[in-house]
Amino acid sequence: MAPNMDAVTATTAAPLAHVQNSHIREMHSDVLFHIGLTCSQEERQHVADTFGDVKFFVTGGSAERMTNFAHAVAKELGIPTPYGYALAPIGSTSRYTLFKVGPVLVANHGIGMPSISILLHEVTKLLEYAGAHGATYIRMGTSGGIGVEPGTVVITSEGINNKLESVDEVAVLGTTVRRPAICSPEVRDEIIAAAKEVGLPYAVGKTLSCNDFYEGQGRLDGAICEYTLEDKMAFLQKLADAGVRNIEMEARCMAGFCHKLRIPVAVVCVTLLNRLNGDQVLSSHETLQGFEKRPAAVLLHYIKTKINALA
Amino acid sequence: MAPNMDAVTATTAAPLAHVQNSHIREMHSDVLFHIGLTCSQEERQHVADTFGDVKFFVTGGSAERMTNFAHAVAKELGIPTPYGYALAPIGSTSRYTLFKVGPVLVANHGIGMPSISILLHEVTKLLEYAGAHGATYIRMGTSGGIGVEPGTVVITSEGINNKLESVDEVAVLGTTVRRPAICSPEVRDEIIAAAKEVGLPYAVGKTLSCNDFYEGQGRLDGAICEYTLEDKMAFLQKLADAGVRNIEMEARCMAGFCHKLRIPVAVVCVTLLNRLNGDQVLSSHETLQGFEKRPAAVLLHYIKTKINALA
Repeated sequence: MAPNMDAVTATTAAPLAHVQNSHIREMHSDVLFHIGLTCSQEERQHVADTFGDVKFFVTGGSAERMTNFAHAVAKELGIPTPYGYALAPIGSTSRYTLFKVGPVLVANHGIGMPSISILLHEVTKLLEYAGAHGATYIRMGTSGGIGVEPGTVVITSEGINNKLESVDEVAVLGTTVRRPAICSPEVRDEIIAAAKEVGLPYAVGKTLSCNDFYEGQGRLDGAICEYTLEDKMAFLQKLADAGVRNIEMEARCMAGFCHKLRIPVAVVCVTLLNRLNGDQVLSSHETLQGFEKRPAAVLLHYIKTKINALA
Repeated sequence: MAPNMDAVTATTAAPLAHVQNSHIREMHSDVLFHIGLTCSQEERQHVADTFGDVKFFVTGGSAERMTNFAHAVAKELGIPTPYGYALAPIGSTSRYTLFKVGPVLVANHGIGMPSISILLHEVTKLLEYAGAHGATYIRMGTSGGIGVEPGTVVITSEGINNKLESVDEVAVLGTTVRRPAICSPEVRDEIIAAAKEVGLPYAVGKTLSCNDFYEGQGRLDGAICEYTLEDKMAFLQKLADAGVRNIEMEARCMAGFCHKLRIPVAVVCVTLLNRLNGDQVLSSHETLQGFEKRPAAVLLHYIKTKINALA
């Protein structure tokens, strides 16, 4: 018994690198319910062996796109697939689809801050248990542009709310907690360098993160719209004047979560349209597909560069 | 030209049954981007032919569960599958998975209020264009129970926020709009009758809808937790005392949206655990699968009863 007890004591006494929750130490087993993985004390070594080498966690909205990205990571980093096997999702796929490709964990986060919030909590606990400390988190996605051409890759400086505050408001029990929603300047600069090297159009600026696609983003084409074109344009112009370059639905939560837990974080989204010119996404399917590949191209180059520098 | 012009004029002049957006009338074509369907003026007759008979829109979190539900609807209502064909999703499946099964539109909404919000806006416009007015919207899902046994089917009276207000707060441009988040009493009563007839344990009460799964719901097992067990229990007890029977992540938005647009609405969620006893979902996979089928069983009986009454 003694060696086992020592091992458990050692594990529970180890300082937590990112997770800020003292209750975690008292849990014998942690069911990461939505991603479908369980970390018990007995399995910690297995978790460390499996996930301990993760250096990047890359997440985006749709499962289809992130599946493609996982395959692209394997190809770009030259990670061999064992003969007779194929890359397959890990855990449960009923809510999120996760891949482990060498040092890169890839997952889709669904739509909106509540959806990405669950993934961030569970992946962060997984990486904490695995001892994969200091992994960089990156969201790649699509967005509506503000004053930039469709197809521009926007690298987020900070996520803001509709009052132009760089703050993630989180309901905690009966109160509301405000957390700074700032992306990591050093990761941002490295991704800017990658975008330059890949030769894609890019911009750096604030990102408005909304809780809906229509009213919050000032669209005129929702099932509810009680403002005028003039109201909308005044709001979008106010955003542009404040340095906002795009609008989406997740950056602020991700930046707030990661800043709180001292996790290096970046958000890299292509713009599908310029909202100063209209609301509907009218580019052809082929054009949009080309745009959607741009953040992936930048991030593949960034990850490859970083890994080569570490090697 | 004249007959076409008249047709367009007649269409655009028709009063809107649910949609509250005068700009919609000026749009020649509406791209329902996330569900992957387009409604142009020329296609309105086709949209009406295809979706005009929809009487129920049933939505739940996961695509897998809603696919199963679509098949169960076909079986329960005796809707024949054309020989050589199989039930298949409509539109794009990259973000949501939709099925049209006779008078029932079925879709998954993903996780959280922003995700269900997009689906509600786009489905409501689709049904408006189709002339399918007065369809009943129902969310079926899973939840954490408050003071009820795991496996209880909770039928929501109203969605509340963490300040116990039955209000859906929506960011509109730079301001915040508050909308009552009340479910329709008449639909609720009919679903209660169905639950009784099916013989499953049920409860009626308020539903707390949160923007995350951990801190907002008072869990002790998130990657961030800065409150004590006592704080958590005081919050949950306050909820119980206020008549809250379960906690999930969508009801308040759905009730607020539908109440605003005079759409009959209900929320029917099974509880997977009693939060007064703990945080982690510890029931076996088989037990949980059985629980997850309960809202479907109640709703299949409800829909069948309603359709038989209409026939």
